[in-house]
Amino acid sequence: MSLDKVMNAESVAIIGASKNETKRGFQAIRTLLDGNYEGIIYPVNPKEKSILGLKCYSRVSAIEDPVDLALITTPAPTIPAVLEDCGKKEVSGAVIIAGGFGEMGSEGKRLEEEIVRVARENHIRIIGPNTSGMMNLRDQMNLVGLREVPRGDIALLSQSGNMALTIMTEAKLKSLKGFSYYVGVGNEADIRFHEYLEFFREDKVTHAILMYVEGMREGRKFLQEAHKTSLKKPIILLKSGRSSTGKRSAGSHTGALAGMSVVAKTAFQRSGIIVVENSDELFPVAETLSSLPPIRNNKIAILADGGGHATIAADVLTDLGVQIPELSEKTRERLRELLPRSAAVINPIDVAGGTDSDPTVFADCADIILKDPEVGGLLIVGLFGGYGIRFAESLSLMEEDAAHRMGKMVRKRKKPIVFHSLYTSAKPHALHLLRYYGIPVYDSLDIACKCVSALAERGTYLHRYHFKTNFTFHWRAKAKHEGNQIIRSARKEGRSALLEHEAKKLLHLHGAPASKDRLARTPDEAVSIAKRMKRNVVLKIVSPDILHKSDAKGVRLNLGTEDEIRAAFDEIIENAKAFRPDADIRGILVAPMARKGLEVIVGTKYDDQFGPVIMYGLGGIMVEVIKDISTRVLPISPVFAKTMIGETKSAPILEGIRGEAPYDKRTLKSVLLMCSELIESYPDIQEMDLNPVIVHEQGVSIVDARIILKPEGKQH
Amino acid sequence: MSLDKVMNAESVAIIGASKNETKRGFQAIRTLLDGNYEGIIYPVNPKEKSILGLKCYSRVSAIEDPVDLALITTPAPTIPAVLEDCGKKEVSGAVIIAGGFGEMGSEGKRLEEEIVRVARENHIRIIGPNTSGMMNLRDQMNLVGLREVPRGDIALLSQSGNMALTIMTEAKLKSLKGFSYYVGVGNEADIRFHEYLEFFREDKVTHAILMYVEGMREGRKFLQEAHKTSLKKPIILLKSGRSSTGKRSAGSHTGALAGMSVVAKTAFQRSGIIVVENSDELFPVAETLSSLPPIRNNKIAILADGGGHATIAADVLTDLGVQIPELSEKTRERLRELLPRSAAVINPIDVAGGTDSDPTVFADCADIILKDPEVGGLLIVGLFGGYGIRFAESLSLMEEDAAHRMGKMVRKRKKPIVFHSLYTSAKPHALHLLRYYGIPVYDSLDIACKCVSALAERGTYLHRYHFKTNFTFHWRAKAKHEGNQIIRSARKEGRSALLEHEAKKLLHLHGAPASKDRLARTPDEAVSIAKRMKRNVVLKIVSPDILHKSDAKGVRLNLGTEDEIRAAFDEIIENAKAFRPDADIRGILVAPMARKGLEVIVGTKYDDQFGPVIMYGLGGIMVEVIKDISTRVLPISPVFAKTMIGETKSAPILEGIRGEAPYDKRTLKSVLLMCSELIESYPDIQEMDLNPVIVHEQGVSIVDARIILKPEGKQH
Repeated sequence: MSLDKVMNAESVAIIGASKNETKRGFQAIRTLLDGNYEGIIYPVNPKEKSILGLKCYSRVSAIEDPVDLALITTPAPTIPAVLEDCGKKEVSGAVIIAGGFGEMGSEGKRLEEEIVRVARENHIRIIGPNTSGMMNLRDQMNLVGLREVPRGDIALLSQSGNMALTIMTEAKLKSLKGFSYYVGVGNEADIRFHEYLEFFREDKVTHAILMYVEGMREGRKFLQEAHKTSLKKPIILLKSGRSSTGKRSAGSHTGALAGMSVVAKTAFQRSGIIVVENSDELFPVAETLSSLPPIRNNKIAILADGGGHATIAADVLTDLGVQIPELSEKTRERLRELLPRSAAVINPIDVAGGTDSDPTVFADCADIILKDPEVGGLLIVGLFGGYGIRFAESLSLMEEDAAHRMGKMVRKRKKPIVFHSLYTSAKPHALHLLRYYGIPVYDSLDIACKCVSALAERGTYLHRYHFKTNFTFHWRAKAKHEGNQIIRSARKEGRSALLEHEAKKLLHLHGAPASKDRLARTPDEAVSIAKRMKRNVVLKIVSPDILHKSDAKGVRLNLGTEDEIRAAFDEIIENAKAFRPDADIRGILVAPMARKGLEVIVGTKYDDQFGPVIMYGLGGIMVEVIKDISTRVLPISPVFAKTMIGETKSAPILEGIRGEAPYDKRTLKSVLLMCSELIESYPDIQEMDLNPVIVHEQGVSIVDARIILKPEGKQH
Repeated sequence: MSLDKVMNAESVAIIGASKNETKRGFQAIRTLLDGNYEGIIYPVNPKEKSILGLKCYSRVSAIEDPVDLALITTPAPTIPAVLEDCGKKEVSGAVIIAGGFGEMGSEGKRLEEEIVRVARENHIRIIGPNTSGMMNLRDQMNLVGLREVPRGDIALLSQSGNMALTIMTEAKLKSLKGFSYYVGVGNEADIRFHEYLEFFREDKVTHAILMYVEGMREGRKFLQEAHKTSLKKPIILLKSGRSSTGKRSAGSHTGALAGMSVVAKTAFQRSGIIVVENSDELFPVAETLSSLPPIRNNKIAILADGGGHATIAADVLTDLGVQIPELSEKTRERLRELLPRSAAVINPIDVAGGTDSDPTVFADCADIILKDPEVGGLLIVGLFGGYGIRFAESLSLMEEDAAHRMGKMVRKRKKPIVFHSLYTSAKPHALHLLRYYGIPVYDSLDIACKCVSALAERGTYLHRYHFKTNFTFHWRAKAKHEGNQIIRSARKEGRSALLEHEAKKLLHLHGAPASKDRLARTPDEAVSIAKRMKRNVVLKIVSPDILHKSDAKGVRLNLGTEDEIRAAFDEIIENAKAFRPDADIRGILVAPMARKGLEVIVGTKYDDQFGPVIMYGLGGIMVEVIKDISTRVLPISPVFAKTMIGETKSAPILEGIRGEAPYDKRTLKSVLLMCSELIESYPDIQEMDLNPVIVHEQGVSIVDARIILKPEGKQH
């Protein structure tokens, strides 16, 4: 159901309307009246005849005309009955302010489930509960009570009222930007983050979406919608609750599961979201991305009127991964003509006093620099805006001239300019003009650099997004009949794990290089299988009752002769019986000894927030001690399989060190992709563990495989 | 020579004094006059009789009374003659503004050397050249031309005029703090960073030292002086020029060698310096450290009036390594009595509306929290200062009351409080009061957290500094007679490297577990040495002309029988002759085969800025691929040797993984300490490479050792 009637309501009932000025039920009406809300307001309170000159109704169902939205300010226990009444009136949405739900333990959780049930029965969508409210600033539908919130093109989604207040205050004090909508998402009991994204994607006023998130209920759907949305508009997100103390704090706050793992961060970025780590940077990045064209080639020039700022900016941008290319000879020559002899015309460009008596030289330089095809954008750092204050008043008019010219330059060249100015807080008119043209100005070098890097990140994403998968599974699409049978027969026996040879067979069906093991029921069978393998073999116990074979001494390696095999067979059976006398022994698996190579680990599991994820790492101490692991939300594309292998610290080992030949990365990549395919094909699979996988110079051997099934009825 | 007469000059000659208002020689006099400089001003210009009402002199030597300091504003080529003239007048110091010296290539470098020579001959100390000037704000000796710089207790050293301007502007706009001195260090041609530190250490007005550094000429002396200074006053430092582009920018700017390595950062921290990475944090951290007592136990409480800010602060502080302990049951009980039922009285503490109608509850809470002995300091985040603005004007008086109480609380309990307030830019009086008591207030959560972590870092340092060595070598103090002879005899032969057995003998002399190798000149000798070793042996070629023995096929491993040894001996000699027919072959080294164990690498080298440094890492791919290395400036103490071993990512391997016994970390530690002792004992040693060193369960074997000597005459 579209959220249109909720977000753009043409009439609002204020349930819990009040004449008491300290009550939310008064303030909300006051704000709507003062703000010239374009719809109709219906106060609801059985004890009042009128409030603030408006007729007051005893209940929602007593209102004559249609009601789109209800703002409910009454306490938690009253809500189910209120919603029932709203249902009678066919109200589309309800904003529930009260806390005391999921964030307050099991009793609250029950009440939350109750209101969701009632709302669903009555076709009412809920914002909240436990929210500071919502605003549609285009229609001046302000259901929060905050005043003087600037209107503009940024949609704000926040799980903290204070953070929303922080961001709105910052927008008002430090920018010309404002907001199209604000939603206090609260406990996300009904409407989830991803549904708001869907709405904002289509909204014509909104040009960027700014999110403060502590915990999220449906991570995968969110990724899917973010992926679609970020192609149209930038999404900027700060996720807090990373640390355990932060989680403790967030948990008591929104009742949602908090946590920002590396998985989450890479998944957010893959769906095109610009992830911000510092709260100081959140609004500035949104301001920049909603105002300027992205940087197409990750390359930036820095223009400075002093060495210190240039040096710091170069450091920070380099840390952020943005390139600072040398300028073309032509560009340098033109800059040399314009600037004093002592100026640095490499990049960073230092004007060395060349702007002191004429700040329009900034615009001249910017024009030359932006024409350089190697330059994707420009960061200007230093004193601009302060020449009139510091040197002579007349210079401020020249600064204004320069601002006009640079503003038009950005539009013409479709390359962004970002400013750092020491004089931001003095509010010179030239900086106001820059902002009017959409050029942001910051008094923090770090923030200005972060904004530049966000423009570069967005440019790079838009250039490459088609290489990325979109987090959508086509469940069962590539399943094989025989594969389904393997799972079905395990289910029939009531097993929640495949036996090793079953797991390997499943892998085989999808083209994976698992060793071709065979089950032997007698020593004779084992010997004849081993003969056909034409190499030394491994014997392993096969029993649904023995998951960890080594613990039961159920594995014997490197057996060559017939005698060795026979002896090992008997020994393993004996050990297994000693380990667990009632074990259901299916036989003994005969596997060829793997060739030498590099041990790696590949696995999949279910993440609470995002569903199936895959991990990869070099075996041994690399995983055990260094935790050198790469992880992604599934499904993955070939590009991601490659990146996963390449981004581990130990990746150079695969290239072959000390003169060794390189290992077969190509086949290893195909193993990761096969895992992705397998998870998509068989929704029954909960967890998969290929360990070890041995990578050879040519080829790969999956030596051991463990596949765990979901509890019955939990598959997609 | 003390800098007192330079820094606290009672008379200043302005060389290049001018009547032209745009000239520095005019502005400097104007500023001194306007600022009520407490000393005497002597304009110097042969073409003028008087300037701004002051008698003008043709040259410094024509001034009748003593002159302490000269501000030289004339161009670079005039400076040597000007200094000569200053010398006649026994001027103590000169501030040289002009650029065009070391930062401008080899010609400039020669001119810089020239002025340093003239200055030394004439006993004049130089600030600069290529500096924006200096200020002594106590005496209003402002030689920069900037106006309205706030006076206070922070000394500012900067290698960028713009960064100094940035910091002063920030101080004026956002704090009640100011500066005791400012020095634009410029090219550091004569007076170096460490000499300013010495001066500020003793200066009574200065309570903190703030430094912006791009490159540094005498890193080790700086560390030594910083070590002494930081025990008395905090030093806060931002070092830029980390990235290669940043270095390029800084190099063209100050002419000094830039670069911020991990070595530099740990060395700075070890000398008690608070290293800041973001320029936004530089002044706030100095403000905080100059105003508040440090946090003694690295444990902080967070008090918030909203969940979002608390969650972010908890995340950021955790990332910064500050602990957020749970509060004692007593503290929690007292908070529960004070706050609403829904308040969180764990840590972070969320008042949950408990301050809405009475913000003095903040002071009540702070009082309870700071009494908890587990709590070393308090961070208050959110809306404080804005209650009067947001809710009712009368609340601002209560906020002021709370501010007074908390200000006194900090003094009484000697525990710091730091504030984040959303309403900082509205400048409410309550926040002004907090600052009056030395409690800083920031509108950035990230910066407030960084300041808290700086207080914790300083507290921890002051608590533990006596475990740290002080970067001072007692050269030759622990040298052995026999060791000196080994080096002398190598020198006599004109060699710049010790032979392997010489290096090992040197190690032995200092108690190191180097293998007890013996030199054999004939196969018979080799056999008899091997017999006495009672285990398999290794043979290695010994020749000053063959440094890399493997390249010459000069090594044979694991030889047991007499025949094997004889054959290997002949083979090695043959290979060596084939490799280099004219090689001076001294014989063959017979070494016992090392027992199995874990391979590590230990080495020392000379760092351009800091002199001798030591490195340690696990051998093989850990060093080769993962670059998992730990480095320190020498000398090191036992605590540092332990930390070096413990801080590598691979350290857990030493503990024994997969049920292995742990390795002998104790002896390994002693090897690192022995390296430190060796470098201190023999200033001839340039570089030392122990690779591999094998760590056993008990004991350590230094299997190979390479020691390179400095060029003659370069030792200390």
